[in-house]
Amino acid sequence: MTILYLLDLFGTFVFAISGCILAERKKMDIFGFFIIGFITAVGGGTLRDLLLGRSPVFWLNDIHYFYTIVIATVLVFFLPSIVLKIKNILKLADAVGIAVFTVIGIEVGLSYQLDPVFSIMMGVMTAIVGGILRDILCNEIPLVLQQEIYATACIAGGITFFLLRYFTKSALFLYAPVIALVIMIRVLSLKYNLSLPRRR
Amino acid sequence: MTILYLLDLFGTFVFAISGCILAERKKMDIFGFFIIGFITAVGGGTLRDLLLGRSPVFWLNDIHYFYTIVIATVLVFFLPSIVLKIKNILKLADAVGIAVFTVIGIEVGLSYQLDPVFSIMMGVMTAIVGGILRDILCNEIPLVLQQEIYATACIAGGITFFLLRYFTKSALFLYAPVIALVIMIRVLSLKYNLSLPRRR
Amino acid sequence: MTILYLLDLFGTFVFAISGCILAERKKMDIFGFFIIGFITAVGGGTLRDLLLGRSPVFWLNDIHYFYTIVIATVLVFFLPSIVLKIKNILKLADAVGIAVFTVIGIEVGLSYQLDPVFSIMMGVMTAIVGGILRDILCNEIPLVLQQEIYATACIAGGITFFLLRYFTKSALFLYAPVIALVIMIRVLSLKYNLSLPRRR
Repeated sequence: MTILYLLDLFGTFVFAISGCILAERKKMDIFGFFIIGFITAVGGGTLRDLLLGRSPVFWLNDIHYFYTIVIATVLVFFLPSIVLKIKNILKLADAVGIAVFTVIGIEVGLSYQLDPVFSIMMGVMTAIVGGILRDILCNEIPLVLQQEIYATACIAGGITFFLLRYFTKSALFLYAPVIALVIMIRVLSLKYNLSLPRRR
Repeated sequence: MTILYLLDLFGTFVFAISGCILAERKKMDIFGFFIIGFITAVGGGTLRDLLLGRSPVFWLNDIHYFYTIVIATVLVFFLPSIVLKIKNILKLADAVGIAVFTVIGIEVGLSYQLDPVFSIMMGVMTAIVGGILRDILCNEIPLVLQQEIYATACIAGGITFFLLRYFTKSALFLYAPVIALVIMIRVLSLKYNLSLPRRR
Repeated sequence: MTILYLLDLFGTFVFAISGCILAERKKMDIFGFFIIGFITAVGGGTLRDLLLGRSPVFWLNDIHYFYTIVIATVLVFFLPSIVLKIKNILKLADAVGIAVFTVIGIEVGLSYQLDPVFSIMMGVMTAIVGGILRDILCNEIPLVLQQEIYATACIAGGITFFLLRYFTKSALFLYAPVIALVIMIRVLSLKYNLSLPRRR
């Protein structure tokens, strides 16, 4: 499905930018920007592919992911002022990214005959593991484990995916509402500063 | 062997609890509890399976591991007072966990025709890598690399496994003494505060 | 090619030593030395093999890597004074290591029909990922992402590899100049304290 592929590259681009922004804060050189951007963008899908035994991993079969991340790296490194100006747009774009990655991960899980629980897990993994690896590489406790409705949005999207699947197998009617829901939950949680319960 | 499988789930449960306890100390939300618990519990076996090319990894073939970790997560999150009260029991349970995981890892290594050195390595890896990943995710230097007879107990168990194997191939007479030995070394090292030599 | 294999073991030895040196600074026990040394030495090639689906990973097929790392561990743990004395020789040896690992990684990439971009990436990965994992395990932001011409030397070597390949397929005339170039760039960058541009 071509539009999902374009959204996939879009998510890759946005995730790479989020990696490069943290690389800049950590005062890395341009190679560090690229590595952190790369791992943020493809880390989740890579772990998913490794766990499933899908080899070589997806981005080795399609060089567009690589070039997308190169462009993001160059952009953040040489034009950081632009990136700062569109900070709020980036948050929205990031929500689009996790929504699309969730759907892609679920589809990969289904193609390996995983049951719904593990398929949703593959979706969530595709969406959030890149950010976790980014934070580990930059020596921070992963943000996603501490606060904000982030993984929760993906899980809700995943459950909705399998509910809708009782009624339709059409990609359009399956993907569009799921993606919209994940984006909505994520944006609302940012707007109203919602987070999961914590002890104490 | 059914009893080894039950012990495996028991070890999974105990390791997940140890992950969730650290997640609580790091003030994570319930999703963070689950992720850290999950990685602590299955991280070692997952790395072992990836290195051997055993795919999909073991826990994707048996959803009981998943539910075991969910139960541990819920327990630590909602009833932390109980978990604190059984702290000493947990240390013993953890010793059982590494003992069982060592035996399971060795058996997986043998099923891939690895020689004794690498089979023992697979056993030790199954037992300790989950804890290492837990510490990395929580931004701490892995405890197991710094102090205490932890990996050493697994290595001693692994060597004993191959010594006993000259005399018997019976799972019972092979596993029981090895598991007992690992638990004993671990418990004694805790009691007498033993550790490996360090420089300085 | 036997000489490349010997250089490979040499690089493994030197990388393991660099891991053990950091383990000592972090006051680890001898088991920690071995683990950090092991991961530093084989981490890059292991990630490469996992991404390509080459299983089991290379060092499980040849126990010489294991023993090489054991020797490095014992050396640094019991004779740290010697290691400190040859500090400058070690920097040169490390340059040899990344040069050899780059060539080996490229060859593995080519054997999987990767195009030049990804083959070079496999080369760079083989050379630098071990050091990145070493730093993460020791709770430091990876040095290679922050400063010094390190990965850059490998990338330059990789590009040279494919330029030379238009003229010759002879391993000797391909490997020797590439290895020499990587060493030279690395040594010069150390001598003149060169690094990649950083923002601000």
